[in-house]
Amino acid sequence: MRSNIPKVLQPLAQRPLLQHVVNTAKQLDAETIITVIGHGADQVEQVMQGQNLVYAYQLEQKGTGHAVQQAIPFFGDEDTVLILYGDVPLTAMSTLEDLLSLVDDQHPLALLTINLDNPQGYGRIVRNTHHAVQAIVEQKDASVSQLQITEVNTGMMAVKGAHLRQWLGQLSANNAQGEYYLTDIIAACVNDGFEVHTTQPQAEIEVLGVNNKQQLQDLERQFQRQLADNLMQQGVTLIDANRIDIRGELKAGMDVSIDVNCVFEGKVELGDGVTIGANCVIKNAKLASGVIIYPFSHLEDVVMGENASAGPYARLRPGTDLGADVKIGNFVETKNAKIAQGSKVSHLSYIGDTVMGQDCNIGAGTITCNYDGVNKHLTQIGDRVFVGSDTQLVAPVVVGDDATIGAGSTITKAVPAAELTLSRSKQLTISGWQKPVKKAK
Amino acid sequence: MRSNIPKVLQPLAQRPLLQHVVNTAKQLDAETIITVIGHGADQVEQVMQGQNLVYAYQLEQKGTGHAVQQAIPFFGDEDTVLILYGDVPLTAMSTLEDLLSLVDDQHPLALLTINLDNPQGYGRIVRNTHHAVQAIVEQKDASVSQLQITEVNTGMMAVKGAHLRQWLGQLSANNAQGEYYLTDIIAACVNDGFEVHTTQPQAEIEVLGVNNKQQLQDLERQFQRQLADNLMQQGVTLIDANRIDIRGELKAGMDVSIDVNCVFEGKVELGDGVTIGANCVIKNAKLASGVIIYPFSHLEDVVMGENASAGPYARLRPGTDLGADVKIGNFVETKNAKIAQGSKVSHLSYIGDTVMGQDCNIGAGTITCNYDGVNKHLTQIGDRVFVGSDTQLVAPVVVGDDATIGAGSTITKAVPAAELTLSRSKQLTISGWQKPVKKAK
Amino acid sequence: MRSNIPKVLQPLAQRPLLQHVVNTAKQLDAETIITVIGHGADQVEQVMQGQNLVYAYQLEQKGTGHAVQQAIPFFGDEDTVLILYGDVPLTAMSTLEDLLSLVDDQHPLALLTINLDNPQGYGRIVRNTHHAVQAIVEQKDASVSQLQITEVNTGMMAVKGAHLRQWLGQLSANNAQGEYYLTDIIAACVNDGFEVHTTQPQAEIEVLGVNNKQQLQDLERQFQRQLADNLMQQGVTLIDANRIDIRGELKAGMDVSIDVNCVFEGKVELGDGVTIGANCVIKNAKLASGVIIYPFSHLEDVVMGENASAGPYARLRPGTDLGADVKIGNFVETKNAKIAQGSKVSHLSYIGDTVMGQDCNIGAGTITCNYDGVNKHLTQIGDRVFVGSDTQLVAPVVVGDDATIGAGSTITKAVPAAELTLSRSKQLTISGWQKPVKKAK
Repeated sequence: MRSNIPKVLQPLAQRPLLQHVVNTAKQLDAETIITVIGHGADQVEQVMQGQNLVYAYQLEQKGTGHAVQQAIPFFGDEDTVLILYGDVPLTAMSTLEDLLSLVDDQHPLALLTINLDNPQGYGRIVRNTHHAVQAIVEQKDASVSQLQITEVNTGMMAVKGAHLRQWLGQLSANNAQGEYYLTDIIAACVNDGFEVHTTQPQAEIEVLGVNNKQQLQDLERQFQRQLADNLMQQGVTLIDANRIDIRGELKAGMDVSIDVNCVFEGKVELGDGVTIGANCVIKNAKLASGVIIYPFSHLEDVVMGENASAGPYARLRPGTDLGADVKIGNFVETKNAKIAQGSKVSHLSYIGDTVMGQDCNIGAGTITCNYDGVNKHLTQIGDRVFVGSDTQLVAPVVVGDDATIGAGSTITKAVPAAELTLSRSKQLTISGWQKPVKKAK
Repeated sequence: MRSNIPKVLQPLAQRPLLQHVVNTAKQLDAETIITVIGHGADQVEQVMQGQNLVYAYQLEQKGTGHAVQQAIPFFGDEDTVLILYGDVPLTAMSTLEDLLSLVDDQHPLALLTINLDNPQGYGRIVRNTHHAVQAIVEQKDASVSQLQITEVNTGMMAVKGAHLRQWLGQLSANNAQGEYYLTDIIAACVNDGFEVHTTQPQAEIEVLGVNNKQQLQDLERQFQRQLADNLMQQGVTLIDANRIDIRGELKAGMDVSIDVNCVFEGKVELGDGVTIGANCVIKNAKLASGVIIYPFSHLEDVVMGENASAGPYARLRPGTDLGADVKIGNFVETKNAKIAQGSKVSHLSYIGDTVMGQDCNIGAGTITCNYDGVNKHLTQIGDRVFVGSDTQLVAPVVVGDDATIGAGSTITKAVPAAELTLSRSKQLTISGWQKPVKKAK
Repeated sequence: MRSNIPKVLQPLAQRPLLQHVVNTAKQLDAETIITVIGHGADQVEQVMQGQNLVYAYQLEQKGTGHAVQQAIPFFGDEDTVLILYGDVPLTAMSTLEDLLSLVDDQHPLALLTINLDNPQGYGRIVRNTHHAVQAIVEQKDASVSQLQITEVNTGMMAVKGAHLRQWLGQLSANNAQGEYYLTDIIAACVNDGFEVHTTQPQAEIEVLGVNNKQQLQDLERQFQRQLADNLMQQGVTLIDANRIDIRGELKAGMDVSIDVNCVFEGKVELGDGVTIGANCVIKNAKLASGVIIYPFSHLEDVVMGENASAGPYARLRPGTDLGADVKIGNFVETKNAKIAQGSKVSHLSYIGDTVMGQDCNIGAGTITCNYDGVNKHLTQIGDRVFVGSDTQLVAPVVVGDDATIGAGSTITKAVPAAELTLSRSKQLTISGWQKPVKKAK
């Protein structure tokens, strides 16, 4: 991967590859999730902490069978062990449920296989005349006729604990690489007289692994297209299914439309009729029905009420909570700001650490001075307040209902309700003033 | 479509599918455009109002033949009736002209067919040994050899009014679905001894219909690529033909260059040598030759003179009319602003309801306070005015030619020509002031 | 090309097609680069000036052989002449080195050929039974069996000067077009008893020429994808390899990640662990390790120190030099600004012609008034300065270490160290003030 980050921590849709696999295991209600780690173990444990994983350490890299051997102390004879791969992130839950359903006392091992147009390089599934799995033959050992087989081993399998322990114990490193191959337990299973049942995934993407940045990118795009297709199936209008990125969970109501080149991160909920303009980045947001986000907007940890709107170029930062019909316009930043129904902040403003009432009109260039260099302070604005342009509200400060503040004011004290308040110097004209002249360089 | 919006109102390039079909009919100089509507009739009529459509109501959904039957009262015997589909939006005018040209008294019905690589599911065109159309056979009724036929029915046809009326009257719903099929009039035509002439479209996109959001997206991309190809044929330089969206009409002069990921809406005219930077959204704009739009700019209802420029991050709102050589810079919003040749508004400003002369320099953070909470007022600025940074111009206000305004001024009264005007408080230093200290939390 | 710009000056990755060819020639250590120009010669010379090209003028357009004839005065008998095409920009250096290595006294001409799936329209390479090149047969002259040949002439060749001069002299325009064909020198070479050695490029893109805007766009995308693939091979994480544009040179360290839809121009260096957010435009920048650029940022001629960050919506203009840990926030413009370690300019500010110390906090809406209408002036800010919001610093001006400036101040004189300085009018409330009423229209 040409990276200081272990492969299983490389990101797919902004989550580590391993996290996708762990999430699948959790959704399958795994009793124990045993994670075999070797190279980069510290980094893996740090990134995955708090997730209740059991770690098995593979201190030497002696093959896939050796890796699974490290897990032996952590499963019981009666457990069914599902073997997944930290770099194969997108196996569908339904596929794995199918695989698990094939395991019982008479069939202690079930294998996931897939038919590939180009099986080059993969271990072929050799079946006997009764179509039962006989062996897995690696590319280099395959006969000419075996090379024609298109069904290959994915490496994913479900195995009864007692048998897995037994067969892992029988593995030998007596081969060219001197490694213990997990694949060899298939032969052991067949030798013991058991029939290996197999199932296949719905799509190739489910068994694709990642070995370099090109494959990581390929998988990212395939995954993103799959997510886009899901959205369209649910009725979302996408203007370009190849130009949307979803890194987390996107829920959408009826008649939602998403324009080109948007990125969604974390948990995003879009109510009925929500419209997202081109080139938006939206992270952790809950947008009520009828909300419109204009192009070039950037939202993070935001709640917006019905028919509220933001943008273009709105930057709504964490703690922004907008009521119905609120309008946030261009070049406006909000942060930790609760703004009630119908208020407008249309241009070039910074509203931070603020509670604002309803139907206010905040002039262009208004700034809440919430920070004194060490502490943050609150600005409280009542209902129906009109703030003239280029006003500074030096927090902590309270503005009463129906107050009007004159343009260009520096407000440092409470503003009474229903009156005009301002700070202003007299406009003067300096007669005879000389314009600057161009300096010689 | 999983939508509360009728299918024919779903958007392709920001227009309802039906609008594309109606536009084609208008371009063909249709005398009457009869629109058969059923489900969602109210919504259709509302969206399409003012377009002189005649509506025929299909109250029950009893098949395509039944739909066309509703149109019978609205056409005459001598009319040629062209039958189109509200969800097949991109049929070329030339194709339909060809189709119409095939209809005369001896050939009262002409049919549009197409050869498909995969004809699965479509009605096959069965021809006799003289290559004359004999019948249309549906997939389920087709013989093994008929299934090999790749020429299929598109459903689009042109028919003489008298014959159409007669044949529609002969339709029977005596079939499994209990529906009246328009297709059956082909058989009626053949039975009456007429030869059915056919023609084919240039491209498959012309006959593609939309049944779900995936198909809508596919058609959107195919259509956009077609529009991009047209632009390139005209000589426009596109950096990525798969990353441009044109929703309306884009006219371009010589040596126009458009960078990646731009969206054009409504009517946009780009003069010779215009350069559009990456990630711009441009709606209804007329840009004279030599104009440069820098990345991340958003224009709507805008006129720009020769060699004017805007952006990056310029937000030009409706009524912006810029003279030659005007420069609008980053984080600047203009609205209803007429700015004469050579003036510059380079940074972080809001210029609304303003008439500005030529060669002005407007400092960063300048704001025209055009709104008093209920009314909008005009700001008039003369020629060669220098406005210092962070000035508020409280409208209505007039600034004379060659005036200079000091930084940080709140201007509420007329500013005389050629003088320095400002409002300013004295700069003071408070000795011994203590910095705030961090509060314990 | 439907353009007023000569074809060889049309841009690929923002450089003229010809520039790519000239760069390749330079990398091959060409002694002389002879550029044959005809149509648009003035424009070519102007664009390419200062590059030490020798120009040969083709005043009449009489074929490719005629073009090369114009170069005769500029090469010597002992020179090896490599013939390239101004509209074939992407031939790999290794391919041309291979080609040049084939030329010696016994083999005075070597030819670059390629096998095409669809050779339609190209001159076929006819070989004898010993596989030696016998002739090049043009499409229109080819026999049925010759049309099956997939090896075609690319036109690129390397020839010993003496022989080239001799064979060019033997060319005849005795053909349908009345033109001198360069291809005919192959026959001359064979006639003189020399064997023509050939080599082939690694990829078809190396021999693709440009004849219209569609081909220019196709080549742009193929080239960009190649550049993206190179980056991924080096270990860069790309979220979408089809949505990155590199127009110049992009160097990246370990664990660099680039989100969707970014454009890089000029020379850009990204240190280890640099993260570039979606939709950024970055030109000539050197970003140290750990730098984060948030979405929608625009950088030009910028240096950023370790772990510094910018954006979203940061506009860093030429001369911006940021120390380690500096943070530039949303809607902030910097220009010719040297900002030392740990300082923050978080919102809605313009910092131009400024030297700022470390650990400063610059409030929202701060503007350096660097321009008086004719001259630019410097703002000098010490260490640990706190500038209150909406302050104007009217340059030239100096602010001492540890100074605090009150919100809304207009600073025109030196600000002493460690004190509070401000300019402020008293906050007043006007009792009984009447709100404006809506005017009848």
